[in-house]
Amino acid sequence: MFPDDSVKEFDNGSSVFDVAKSISTSLAKKAVVGKLDGKMVAINTPIEKDAKIEIITQGSDDANIVMWNSAAVLLTAAIEDIYQNVEFGEIGNIEHGFYADTDKKDQQISVDELPAIQDRMKEMVSEKIELKPSKIAVDEALKQVDGDPYQAQIIKRNAVDGQIQIYKVKDHVIVSDAVVLPNSGDVKALKLLSVAGAYWEGKSSNPMLQRIYGTAFFKQKDLEVEIERQKEARERDHRVIGNNLDLFFVDPKVGAGLPYWMPNGATIRRTIERYIIDKEVNNGYQHVYTPILMNLDAYKTSGHWQHYREDMFPPMDMGDGEMLELRPMNCPSHIQVYKHHIRSYRELPIRIAELGMMHRYEKSGALSGLQRVREMTLNDGHTFVAPEQIQDEFKQILQLMVEVYKDFDITDYSFRLSYRDPKNTEKYFDDDEMWNHSQSMLKGAMDDLGLDYVEAEGEAAFYGPKLDVQTKTALGNEETLSTIQLDFMLPKQFDLHYVGADGEEHRPVMIHRGLVSTMERFTAYLTEIYKGAFPTWLAPKQVTIIPVKDDVHGEYADQLKAKMVKENIRAEVDHRNEKMGYKIREAQTQKIPYILVVGDSEVADDSVSVRKYGQDDSKNESSDVFVNNLVDEIANYSRESK
Amino acid sequence: MFPDDSVKEFDNGSSVFDVAKSISTSLAKKAVVGKLDGKMVAINTPIEKDAKIEIITQGSDDANIVMWNSAAVLLTAAIEDIYQNVEFGEIGNIEHGFYADTDKKDQQISVDELPAIQDRMKEMVSEKIELKPSKIAVDEALKQVDGDPYQAQIIKRNAVDGQIQIYKVKDHVIVSDAVVLPNSGDVKALKLLSVAGAYWEGKSSNPMLQRIYGTAFFKQKDLEVEIERQKEARERDHRVIGNNLDLFFVDPKVGAGLPYWMPNGATIRRTIERYIIDKEVNNGYQHVYTPILMNLDAYKTSGHWQHYREDMFPPMDMGDGEMLELRPMNCPSHIQVYKHHIRSYRELPIRIAELGMMHRYEKSGALSGLQRVREMTLNDGHTFVAPEQIQDEFKQILQLMVEVYKDFDITDYSFRLSYRDPKNTEKYFDDDEMWNHSQSMLKGAMDDLGLDYVEAEGEAAFYGPKLDVQTKTALGNEETLSTIQLDFMLPKQFDLHYVGADGEEHRPVMIHRGLVSTMERFTAYLTEIYKGAFPTWLAPKQVTIIPVKDDVHGEYADQLKAKMVKENIRAEVDHRNEKMGYKIREAQTQKIPYILVVGDSEVADDSVSVRKYGQDDSKNESSDVFVNNLVDEIANYSRESK
Repeated sequence: MFPDDSVKEFDNGSSVFDVAKSISTSLAKKAVVGKLDGKMVAINTPIEKDAKIEIITQGSDDANIVMWNSAAVLLTAAIEDIYQNVEFGEIGNIEHGFYADTDKKDQQISVDELPAIQDRMKEMVSEKIELKPSKIAVDEALKQVDGDPYQAQIIKRNAVDGQIQIYKVKDHVIVSDAVVLPNSGDVKALKLLSVAGAYWEGKSSNPMLQRIYGTAFFKQKDLEVEIERQKEARERDHRVIGNNLDLFFVDPKVGAGLPYWMPNGATIRRTIERYIIDKEVNNGYQHVYTPILMNLDAYKTSGHWQHYREDMFPPMDMGDGEMLELRPMNCPSHIQVYKHHIRSYRELPIRIAELGMMHRYEKSGALSGLQRVREMTLNDGHTFVAPEQIQDEFKQILQLMVEVYKDFDITDYSFRLSYRDPKNTEKYFDDDEMWNHSQSMLKGAMDDLGLDYVEAEGEAAFYGPKLDVQTKTALGNEETLSTIQLDFMLPKQFDLHYVGADGEEHRPVMIHRGLVSTMERFTAYLTEIYKGAFPTWLAPKQVTIIPVKDDVHGEYADQLKAKMVKENIRAEVDHRNEKMGYKIREAQTQKIPYILVVGDSEVADDSVSVRKYGQDDSKNESSDVFVNNLVDEIANYSRESK
Repeated sequence: MFPDDSVKEFDNGSSVFDVAKSISTSLAKKAVVGKLDGKMVAINTPIEKDAKIEIITQGSDDANIVMWNSAAVLLTAAIEDIYQNVEFGEIGNIEHGFYADTDKKDQQISVDELPAIQDRMKEMVSEKIELKPSKIAVDEALKQVDGDPYQAQIIKRNAVDGQIQIYKVKDHVIVSDAVVLPNSGDVKALKLLSVAGAYWEGKSSNPMLQRIYGTAFFKQKDLEVEIERQKEARERDHRVIGNNLDLFFVDPKVGAGLPYWMPNGATIRRTIERYIIDKEVNNGYQHVYTPILMNLDAYKTSGHWQHYREDMFPPMDMGDGEMLELRPMNCPSHIQVYKHHIRSYRELPIRIAELGMMHRYEKSGALSGLQRVREMTLNDGHTFVAPEQIQDEFKQILQLMVEVYKDFDITDYSFRLSYRDPKNTEKYFDDDEMWNHSQSMLKGAMDDLGLDYVEAEGEAAFYGPKLDVQTKTALGNEETLSTIQLDFMLPKQFDLHYVGADGEEHRPVMIHRGLVSTMERFTAYLTEIYKGAFPTWLAPKQVTIIPVKDDVHGEYADQLKAKMVKENIRAEVDHRNEKMGYKIREAQTQKIPYILVVGDSEVADDSVSVRKYGQDDSKNESSDVFVNNLVDEIANYSRESK
């Protein structure tokens, strides 16, 4: 039976390949692997019973996985061919390629040795070796791997009915459960990429092996596209740029997931922080500072301790019966601020905001640069509204958000509204009217503003509907840039009130909102979208001035710098005793927006020779014009700076 | 024998008073109490052996203590005279007066009852009761206090040779070891001041008693001066002002010593933070953000864990063998920043700064408003210098400090240089040359800058000499505003280097420095010196605009506001439906620097009627002139705003 539900009869013992050929020669040519009743099998596997057959062809995801598993087998064989005394851990496929874990006792394999290994793999490709799986007894397999402790564990772990699957490549026996291509010659295009450490079984208490990465395709063209994509991702990877531009570092020895912002990164962060605070203050937010520690009881009241405990840091016993907890969220803190006064309906909406430091316990394996950390500072805000104000407030926040995106030149994002599933009464706060009212308010606001969005039923949190703004990281992972979350539960749990026009107590609705998420994640994101070439207003160094001859033009350069510093421009003079070309190249590597070269003619007419980052040519401008334009550009954020 | 070493003979059994009279009648008249061999005794105590005699006269500190102890005895007697069923805890003197702890079971004593108690005390004064100490047996004393559990403990604790000292006032027996005046009539001027809670023995696990405070003097004039001083201190107390101006609050239920900065306080803090960061950046400091958590091992290397543990928060066990500690200091963090690169002598001095959040465990009894907290953000900086740069760097820091003081209009401070005690080789880092060199560098810099200072030998820390800038709080406590601390030890412990001109590794010296201490303490201090009337640049609200009739002049007021907001002035319009006089009074209570009233004539000629805080009259000014002057005033910090 085929996926289209048609039924065909074949001789018992026919292979998937035979089936493909019976349909068309071109299908057989592109057929990579088969699926029998959903289980992947080699193309030449005999079909021995009635089954649903799928034929997987080149270009599909499944075909790539088979390609990568095949390459991993070849990689293992090639390494064994070249080196003595190598042990092997796991081999297989990953998102965009393949890998093999190795342990070469006497001396580890260096990245310089990859070309030789790759050459040996290519030799095996041209030898067109048949890759046929066979089963052997566990005892026999253990003999074959000759005391390799990792392979021995894999054999014992993977044995089925006392047998294990192997491939033979020349005289090498490779233990692998994977389905591979029928012939080494099918691995048309391959490349080894890198070497990195990988713990055996992923546990840091186990020995560290070396993981050799590569990728492979059916067509040379596809390989080239992938290599280009990886190069691009590497160039955008905020960890790489962060290191090159000296923005930040993380040292697990002093604290995993706890980044140190170096002066350059700190300047960017400070600029973002001041921008966002000023923006919020001008939009009616009251900025506060609240403590990052709170009595654990508050998190019991909020429910965080019951539902969120594994993401929280361990509480600290302060004596006197006090247990203090590093906050995982700022909401209970802002609730304290709200509750500090009796609130009147006349004050609503009350908008409380903070750059609030929080701590969340992420598993050490999940930590990554500034993107996934354990200590973070959230651009957080909570607005307290009367139920009838939800739509207006939601709109105000949305407009603010879109303005902010414009200022940072963020264009690649999409909106997602998350609703409850009305049938799932267990999962959602029980108040039909509230849900219907609030969801229609959010939807209405989006429509009013003419914004596109998708609706996701059943994706809301227990306590209210929300809007997420989604984007993608350089490595292709989806990420949430901003959230507006309605909350009907915390006001109840903390018993919040305002005095209405009727003199009675009423319950406000809380809206949690972050415009640009955490300083850590947002800076990582910006680093990636700008590829490190920060727009002038954010750039740690905005202008570098290079005197042609320091003893002759250095003084003029200093005067220029003073003029700019007065206008709050981050300018510096490169007085070092180095060649001009070297200084220019270094400034370009640092992605400084403006390089000014000043020599005799510039000193003579009070001008500058301007070279803008990313442009090849330079132009001469009066120093006043340059400074005035620059002041304008900075005041205009990223909007003109592209 | 007298303090002047003269020797006189008296009959055995003569009292101190007799001795005083033998010298002069006027001395006898002013004599309050005596000291025999340094121990205070009542003026009428018979002298029974050879002893060094001092005669304490009115106006001395010792005389005041005797006065306050006498008043405490009278207070106890008066309370027992008025109420049934009162138990008594400690009684005695404090810095500026006296107190008695009471526990009135059925209903606690309210502040409204103090006048009646005071009247009864004054009756006792006019009755001129002799206050003669006598000794009674413990058993007898226990019978006298009739089951009072606190008094019973005091009696047992204070008994000497099975006896205890008491005073009898009318039919009341008062247990007290103190020396008092000979007659109740000597308590010339007294006043009861307040009632507050006080735990028995100062432990929060014990019952809370009521402490009744008062003060007393030999002259009515002195009492009046003290009452005025206390009133002034109360008016300046940052906790009182902080509450009135809604700057901050602390709620021990959610976290002791963890202040919440309300929007007004947060605005002041943010203004200070931006000012200080900009100032430091312009002076060559590289601002960073470093994590507030660090692996405990770093604090073992620094020695903080060994020597400072009781002031640190409990470590958190993160699993994976990692213990994380909330940092009590920022130095190890800045050392990480220094060590992240190989440093060259060309880069020195390297100045690393941060508004660094820290946590220190203060006893709950020591916590006070923003002045003594458990979570604090320090204006911290560490400069790394070559030994020969110490003096220049010290001078640069000092100059910066003095500039900052000027900008905040801080004038009441003094400098103290702390040196080692050269004889105490145990207490100080062993390196004679280093101490001599660095101490002379500090002294030299002070002299060069023409600054006055005191020198305190033996007051230095183990690891280097320092300069402290001392000031006084509203309550009269001495406090350190800023510190410059040299450190020769941490660079050694963390093995810091720079590459010298000779290509060799050299050890830098670290200078710890804070210009304005923590944001918490500095804001408390400023609140007190300004009495809440913050200079315009720091004021949370700088201008309030009051339209004479909101429907007629409200729009003009809004235009004025917009004009000012554009210049980053914190202006607001009071549109409320309240009387103008009420609005003006409220703005004055909030100590807003400028009140602008706008009516017909202001609208007509685009002017404002300006009333500056603290001035009675208002003047008319064109709106442009007002705004321009205000922009200048703010840019000029506090220097012109007095």
